[in-house]
Amino acid sequence: MIILGMDPGLAILGYGVIDYQKGSQYTVLDYGCVFTKAHTPMPDRLMKLADGVEALCRKFQPDAIAMEELFFNKNVTTAIAVAQARGVILQQAARYTNELFEYTPLQVKQAVVGYGRADKHQVQEMMRLQLRLTEIPQPDDAADALAIAICHANSSEMPQSFRIE
Amino acid sequence: MIILGMDPGLAILGYGVIDYQKGSQYTVLDYGCVFTKAHTPMPDRLMKLADGVEALCRKFQPDAIAMEELFFNKNVTTAIAVAQARGVILQQAARYTNELFEYTPLQVKQAVVGYGRADKHQVQEMMRLQLRLTEIPQPDDAADALAIAICHANSSEMPQSFRIE
Repeated sequence: MIILGMDPGLAILGYGVIDYQKGSQYTVLDYGCVFTKAHTPMPDRLMKLADGVEALCRKFQPDAIAMEELFFNKNVTTAIAVAQARGVILQQAARYTNELFEYTPLQVKQAVVGYGRADKHQVQEMMRLQLRLTEIPQPDDAADALAIAICHANSSEMPQSFRIE
Repeated sequence: MIILGMDPGLAILGYGVIDYQKGSQYTVLDYGCVFTKAHTPMPDRLMKLADGVEALCRKFQPDAIAMEELFFNKNVTTAIAVAQARGVILQQAARYTNELFEYTPLQVKQAVVGYGRADKHQVQEMMRLQLRLTEIPQPDDAADALAIAICHANSSEMPQSFRIE
């Protein structure tokens, strides 16, 4: 099963693609980020995100796509901008599969490390080990996206609970 | 110049299409709404909105698209959902033209009625007269979208100020 994990954002969309066969190891197929520049028109930034998601879906034909759920404790303007980006990313992903899932940061930590209060470095290190990588992927957004993909793989016993509705 | 006005939303996307030749009358080409049902999955709702915008753009080939700016005084969850929809609508519109504009409700009233404190009925009645319609379009979202299109036509002296950046 090919899983595309995404850490959605307006300026940076982190992604990680893994191949997961039940009971066996994970294989990393790709990871990275789609960047959109500040001070460029919003419509262009949104199109670039959509194109990025489309390219990933075409290339890897994911069986499932998992995203991090958004939380907002910042100012409303930022929240609106990020939500716009998330809408675009979600809509584009939905063109390729109905298997769309989302997880909170807590659920990701729980699934990758085993407990929800793990710090960022613990999550990254556990993710690195599980994926048999020599280094922690950079930037953080790509590492986060890989963790989200692992989280979905580890949640495959009851993934329906996390389906985006 | 063909102008597509849109009143963006998640449950209802109002649209109105007018043909405007400088110094002459407006011609209404179409108006209506794209509806998405509550309690259907968000990805499906977002795709339906994108498809609706795409169909309108393909059919009418607008020279400019004008949207109402979003204001949020409701709860954050609603704001996020509407912003996701707006992102999708904006991104899809951007596939067809760079001429993307937005206006506040105040600017729409100012442009259609002549003063910013006009009430909804005054706006709808002035819009009806300017478009030479026998009745006020229903539902309100379609009427609002036509008003936004008129607003853009009336703002064509300095539309750059309202370009979506």
